[in-house]
Amino acid sequence: MTDNASDTPKAGKGQGQAMWGGRFSAKPAELMQAINVSIGFDKRLWAQDLAGSRAHARMLISQGVIASSDGEEILEGLAKIEDEIATGTFPFRDEYEDIHMNIEARLRELIGPTAGRLHTARSRNDQVAVDFRLWVRDAADRTVGQLEALQKALLAQAEAHADALMPGFTHLQPAQPVTFGHHLMAYVEMFGRDASRFRDARARMNECPLGAAALAGSPFPIDRHATAAALGFDRPTANSLDSVSARDFALEALSAASITATHLSRLAEEIVLWTTPMFGFIKLTDAFTTGSSIMPQKKNPDAAELIRAKVGRILGSLTTLTVVMKGLPLAYSKDMQEDKVPTFEAFDALELSLLAMAGMVADLTPNTENMAKAAGAGFSTATDLADWLVRTLNMPFRDAHHVTGSAVKTAEGLGVDLADLTLEQFQAIEPRITQDVYAVLTPAASAASRMSYGGTAPAQVRAQIARWKELLA
Amino acid sequence: MTDNASDTPKAGKGQGQAMWGGRFSAKPAELMQAINVSIGFDKRLWAQDLAGSRAHARMLISQGVIASSDGEEILEGLAKIEDEIATGTFPFRDEYEDIHMNIEARLRELIGPTAGRLHTARSRNDQVAVDFRLWVRDAADRTVGQLEALQKALLAQAEAHADALMPGFTHLQPAQPVTFGHHLMAYVEMFGRDASRFRDARARMNECPLGAAALAGSPFPIDRHATAAALGFDRPTANSLDSVSARDFALEALSAASITATHLSRLAEEIVLWTTPMFGFIKLTDAFTTGSSIMPQKKNPDAAELIRAKVGRILGSLTTLTVVMKGLPLAYSKDMQEDKVPTFEAFDALELSLLAMAGMVADLTPNTENMAKAAGAGFSTATDLADWLVRTLNMPFRDAHHVTGSAVKTAEGLGVDLADLTLEQFQAIEPRITQDVYAVLTPAASAASRMSYGGTAPAQVRAQIARWKELLA
Amino acid sequence: MTDNASDTPKAGKGQGQAMWGGRFSAKPAELMQAINVSIGFDKRLWAQDLAGSRAHARMLISQGVIASSDGEEILEGLAKIEDEIATGTFPFRDEYEDIHMNIEARLRELIGPTAGRLHTARSRNDQVAVDFRLWVRDAADRTVGQLEALQKALLAQAEAHADALMPGFTHLQPAQPVTFGHHLMAYVEMFGRDASRFRDARARMNECPLGAAALAGSPFPIDRHATAAALGFDRPTANSLDSVSARDFALEALSAASITATHLSRLAEEIVLWTTPMFGFIKLTDAFTTGSSIMPQKKNPDAAELIRAKVGRILGSLTTLTVVMKGLPLAYSKDMQEDKVPTFEAFDALELSLLAMAGMVADLTPNTENMAKAAGAGFSTATDLADWLVRTLNMPFRDAHHVTGSAVKTAEGLGVDLADLTLEQFQAIEPRITQDVYAVLTPAASAASRMSYGGTAPAQVRAQIARWKELLA
Amino acid sequence: MTDNASDTPKAGKGQGQAMWGGRFSAKPAELMQAINVSIGFDKRLWAQDLAGSRAHARMLISQGVIASSDGEEILEGLAKIEDEIATGTFPFRDEYEDIHMNIEARLRELIGPTAGRLHTARSRNDQVAVDFRLWVRDAADRTVGQLEALQKALLAQAEAHADALMPGFTHLQPAQPVTFGHHLMAYVEMFGRDASRFRDARARMNECPLGAAALAGSPFPIDRHATAAALGFDRPTANSLDSVSARDFALEALSAASITATHLSRLAEEIVLWTTPMFGFIKLTDAFTTGSSIMPQKKNPDAAELIRAKVGRILGSLTTLTVVMKGLPLAYSKDMQEDKVPTFEAFDALELSLLAMAGMVADLTPNTENMAKAAGAGFSTATDLADWLVRTLNMPFRDAHHVTGSAVKTAEGLGVDLADLTLEQFQAIEPRITQDVYAVLTPAASAASRMSYGGTAPAQVRAQIARWKELLA
Repeated sequence: MTDNASDTPKAGKGQGQAMWGGRFSAKPAELMQAINVSIGFDKRLWAQDLAGSRAHARMLISQGVIASSDGEEILEGLAKIEDEIATGTFPFRDEYEDIHMNIEARLRELIGPTAGRLHTARSRNDQVAVDFRLWVRDAADRTVGQLEALQKALLAQAEAHADALMPGFTHLQPAQPVTFGHHLMAYVEMFGRDASRFRDARARMNECPLGAAALAGSPFPIDRHATAAALGFDRPTANSLDSVSARDFALEALSAASITATHLSRLAEEIVLWTTPMFGFIKLTDAFTTGSSIMPQKKNPDAAELIRAKVGRILGSLTTLTVVMKGLPLAYSKDMQEDKVPTFEAFDALELSLLAMAGMVADLTPNTENMAKAAGAGFSTATDLADWLVRTLNMPFRDAHHVTGSAVKTAEGLGVDLADLTLEQFQAIEPRITQDVYAVLTPAASAASRMSYGGTAPAQVRAQIARWKELLA
Repeated sequence: MTDNASDTPKAGKGQGQAMWGGRFSAKPAELMQAINVSIGFDKRLWAQDLAGSRAHARMLISQGVIASSDGEEILEGLAKIEDEIATGTFPFRDEYEDIHMNIEARLRELIGPTAGRLHTARSRNDQVAVDFRLWVRDAADRTVGQLEALQKALLAQAEAHADALMPGFTHLQPAQPVTFGHHLMAYVEMFGRDASRFRDARARMNECPLGAAALAGSPFPIDRHATAAALGFDRPTANSLDSVSARDFALEALSAASITATHLSRLAEEIVLWTTPMFGFIKLTDAFTTGSSIMPQKKNPDAAELIRAKVGRILGSLTTLTVVMKGLPLAYSKDMQEDKVPTFEAFDALELSLLAMAGMVADLTPNTENMAKAAGAGFSTATDLADWLVRTLNMPFRDAHHVTGSAVKTAEGLGVDLADLTLEQFQAIEPRITQDVYAVLTPAASAASRMSYGGTAPAQVRAQIARWKELLA
Repeated sequence: MTDNASDTPKAGKGQGQAMWGGRFSAKPAELMQAINVSIGFDKRLWAQDLAGSRAHARMLISQGVIASSDGEEILEGLAKIEDEIATGTFPFRDEYEDIHMNIEARLRELIGPTAGRLHTARSRNDQVAVDFRLWVRDAADRTVGQLEALQKALLAQAEAHADALMPGFTHLQPAQPVTFGHHLMAYVEMFGRDASRFRDARARMNECPLGAAALAGSPFPIDRHATAAALGFDRPTANSLDSVSARDFALEALSAASITATHLSRLAEEIVLWTTPMFGFIKLTDAFTTGSSIMPQKKNPDAAELIRAKVGRILGSLTTLTVVMKGLPLAYSKDMQEDKVPTFEAFDALELSLLAMAGMVADLTPNTENMAKAAGAGFSTATDLADWLVRTLNMPFRDAHHVTGSAVKTAEGLGVDLADLTLEQFQAIEPRITQDVYAVLTPAASAASRMSYGGTAPAQVRAQIARWKELLA
Repeated sequence: MTDNASDTPKAGKGQGQAMWGGRFSAKPAELMQAINVSIGFDKRLWAQDLAGSRAHARMLISQGVIASSDGEEILEGLAKIEDEIATGTFPFRDEYEDIHMNIEARLRELIGPTAGRLHTARSRNDQVAVDFRLWVRDAADRTVGQLEALQKALLAQAEAHADALMPGFTHLQPAQPVTFGHHLMAYVEMFGRDASRFRDARARMNECPLGAAALAGSPFPIDRHATAAALGFDRPTANSLDSVSARDFALEALSAASITATHLSRLAEEIVLWTTPMFGFIKLTDAFTTGSSIMPQKKNPDAAELIRAKVGRILGSLTTLTVVMKGLPLAYSKDMQEDKVPTFEAFDALELSLLAMAGMVADLTPNTENMAKAAGAGFSTATDLADWLVRTLNMPFRDAHHVTGSAVKTAEGLGVDLADLTLEQFQAIEPRITQDVYAVLTPAASAASRMSYGGTAPAQVRAQIARWKELLA
């Protein structure tokens, strides 16, 4: 794509060779064509381009800028083009450089010079701005749907395993028992914020640049509110220079995508860890793993690894577009043609990741026995003992921790768990300890006791599951 | 900072050497201290840490978790610490590693073992989470204020120069006349979206992680809604693992900062261009330039160049934190200590950039004569002629552009502007052209004619200025 | 691609459906296929894959690991495949996932079970490692050639304009006169370092991973030195785990590409500036610009803008791969499949940029009159006057600058240049000034006087041109 | 720092207020000072700045540009300044903006107006260029030393555990047995390439920009080869514009740092994995871990996690500087002041990471029992069985893998390892199998058999250790 103060008549010059209005004494070098041409990737905007053209044509008719009969011809031509693209018969041609010129040229072939009237009060600068914005808006909407599907998959597993104990890790060292449901619900929260980020981005970008023309607005009596409404925008953009120069809507969408991908990479890493036999926490079916023909037990979590990697591509895309936009003076510069590929690629990667992750979450089966065993190892209820001493005996922390440390040392020395110490052994350390203490020394008791809002107690976990099920209903 | 399932008693061990509860047989190596210590940068969180501790202490009292008398002692100790920090007498000590332990240790020195009761139902994991979130929330609020101040500076210049003509550029080639006010208003739009991005980020992050404890929640009867309210949060976070693991609030703030910085870099680039004598569009005073002792006319736009560069630092910070968070399993990992420096640096850079840009915008004086001259050069109203032919003669675009091209060629051949062609000369090209055509051939007429919503017509520009003045009032 | 402890027999299972050896009870989901399949992009490695297979087959024969007759059959099959790919008849099939499996499966179709013997002592892990390394090595070689071609284009222009004066800018403010040739030679230096960076990268990566097998090496009596030599490597890699895990060769190549792209973006920015009518320093032909059908004078430097933007894509690719590799445990992880797309895209962008830039440099014509005029404006020889006072009158700097400042003020007041002041006017400021002073007050004299090594004096510029012509001969 | 066509006399104006030669009617605003001042970070260049000044002064003397007596005074003044800085008595002052002006102003205070003569034929542009290049060169040298120390630590562990079996992982699934020594040697290879990257970068950057003056070279009869030699450079830079504009030497050093950090993050990730009780492969002492006062068994690998995170900072720094340099026209722009902070921070992070990693590697103790047990699990020698069938029975791969798959299934059904199957059980699957097969079915035999160059056979591992010990001797 390129801008032009007025690029209307160029395609009018005829069949394919006349892109620059015949003004150039030499055909652009092959090299120039190679670096300049964008139809290879911007053809993805065809539906948006047609939608924008239709909205524009209808507005021109109702404002009396073009005759109804001309307008109808144009709309019929656009319908024919849509049909051609849908059926794969549309001739995409490099010589027309971009999607706008390809459609424009085809329209002229189909309906003759009337095609040119479509470009009254329009330029490729506002045309590409509206097309791309529509595409990003659609991508944001699609992503919200995919995030919600992933949340639902997580909710289903969380509900099924709201009580299943597993170690809560810090520094990848077991710290305190939590439940698998609780752990999965942490991701429901993250993906919930991700979805709300896309919703905010969508609301902010939902202003229509059409009618900004090349950069300064139009002298024709156009109705920008009408085209905005027709395309589902909340309002037209308020400054024509900004309309054709702005790409922050794409940067914001890419930022939201990058944050989402970071969350996905964390869950993917956990799936890789949980499936290694060293952990043995979950099992994936063959649907999301690959294997070895001679090592039947080996199930490589390829999908999880690929999802983990995708944050690279998506952050890379954000980096790309930020660098492209850095220091660009107003209004349109050709640099901005480099906005589409990174955005397309980032959302392709994100979409695939979200879908595959939802599939994998639904696919996984926890090995609750292994998890529970790990949850109880390593004196994981030491904190619970200390808290019991503080709560029950009103012991100062310092002393409570001293007592707990001694108990752990005793147990360690005996090669047993805290819950295996006899009451005598406990009382040898601190005489006021009673039988009641055993109620907090199992992983299940530990988890159940953490009843603070948002805590890992199964009752709390179920409350959050219920809240989210309602939110996502 | 580090996590700990329960780190309460560690500082209880005494004066500075006992960070790890005396358990370690060897003092951590100097190297470990060097890589691990964070007090050098996280001391910036002191106010947030004290606020969090106060809210926590008051909640513990009102929930009956600690005695009122203990609570009051703690609050008095915290007040004393605040005073010490404010007056510069607080002893920040590397041996206590981070801001939390420094304050905790000092509290113990001031009030004795009661200090330890503050840490009931709390861990450094949720403590740092709430501190950092408060800091980022404040930064977002501050940024919104700075963005609005910049918008006001732009509005003032835009209002003063709503009619001042300048070339509207595409590809840095003059394309169509616009007004300087219109051009500046494009940035008002951008910075307006930037501010709304920070507002959305603030709303999303405004949930309180306090009470998540190490990672699993607390068995004490705490009231997380109370601490959330006391700290100005909308509600507590809903999942304790997420509470200590989440850093997307910082990533989102950095993303918004990076986009804002991109906008600043564009305006800064334009200021560099406008001040080079090759353009000569604006003048800055000595306040925002540097000079040469022997080349008095040389005014280097250093501030603009530095602002242009800052997007590097800010995108770099976003990259840093994204890479840090990539693939981290739940819950807390020490990697996350690397969240603060990039965030602090990015907001320092952004703040300085916004303030300096607001100052520079207020400081600049346009050379309207140079601008107007450039606005009229290069047949910049050729599009207006074509539009006139379409509008007035209902000429098809193809023909209108053909006629215009011929007129430009004639003028170019004669070495004059379009407006300098005689009516005869016009009519020799197209007989139906009338005297009326001259009304669209001046830059002023061109600009004034672009009355579409958001267009460059001064009336439109003023309407947008009025709208924004009301919004920012 | 994926790894496998031993993936040899998988394709042996038959025609296309049997990728995972029939072990999976369910066909991999479409989703898994979608995220997993790489043939869409790794087919670009076909030539490297065939070269690697040939070298491996020949080594297996000469080591007696496979029978000569089997080996010959394999080599003939590979030749047939090469022919099919070259003529476009090779059936690339998604069901075979990647280029290695596609070729392997086709080989089996062509020559039967003997095909399987090719995979003795080889795995897809070392296969993809060698293929990709060969591709990157070729890309580095190609880039060096393109950089040298660009340097030659710059040298030709520099030689033609070694004396052409232009302003030397700092902060985009004219500072001292330089020559256009000197300015272009700065880029010859930069691109020279860029080329040497690729040469170093190439030398470092030139070790052959083939024979590392899946990750641990092979029990077969293979000769890794032989395959290394056959493929043009300096030696085999020295650690089998590193061989299949390393991607620093690609990171280094991307780093070199990113630095080169930074240099290209600087020159591209200057071309955009030089071609704006506000500067008017150079002219490009239609071959590298686009235009407007009705504004004949408008020539948009699209190619320069696109080149300026490409650093975004290339830095984005480097970011992508760095993030992908962050924190990956040894040996092969599927994440590494994400190494190819960013690398291919970065080098495609770089290649196009280098070729287009070389074309544009050859294409440009300086407007030496405009440049020279700008070179003389703004008292650009004030420094020369001060230096003359120091050199000739042994005046301390302090006084020399005071005198110069006064002279500039006098000239500024009179609205003339320094060289236009009369000797009387000079002597009124400093009586010891003589007629000789005029010899340093013209831009040409200023430039000619800067004879220090690497300075802008045309004699120095020509010396550097001569040196580079010899280096590049 | 800023450039100036000639900034010599400015400090001559006197004590601190006269930075801009008294020309500015107003003191730069506080804001401008805040954004402009660099002494806060560039004071780190003091040693380089003094070295550069000394070399320049000696050259000026020997070229007769300044009198010997003046030169000696200057050298004495510089010695005094060095002493002041070393003893902490040097007055760093914001009002002098940067390190160059601070030293220049102090020199004038110490020796009077003669100080000004030091600035003959020099500008801050070439001064900062040489200072920063010297700093980066030193950093590169230091990094090479730290990399070699880390390699030595790895070599020592590798030698001690050249035979210790552990699972070789792909996709974090055990694939084939390797030895711990072999695994560590993979990192020796990586860090060896990293060191060679720094060596290449150092060689390439080792050209001296001093004498380029502001941008155009100098009219004084300076000897740039002499200053270059005095400062340890191989030669002077060959183009004065390039000399003050180039920052690719820093970009290259940051790229090398980023790649090194990627390698460090991989090893750090492995240490985190190996120390989790789920793996239990190694133990770290308290020197590089932190703990919990009440969970004595918990050892958090904080140092490893921090090292893993540092790649974020370092890639962030590379991103920062690349973005800063993108699209900057020649010669000096103030944007380039933003080169130092990211570079300093990146190398601080890298240095700490390398030192801590070397310490941790020396500190770790492998739990060889756990490792060996894991190495034998999961039919990890299935590939060896298949290879034996091919090698010994000349069985085609297809059949060998079929036989192996059957054997694994049999063993899996019986709940035993492959080596536990009886010969009868093997022969029931394939009658030609003999007693010899057992020799390849143990992990030790598997590892020992992989004798290909660079393979995991202990003999191969020891050969590589020997090679590296010699290289690093």
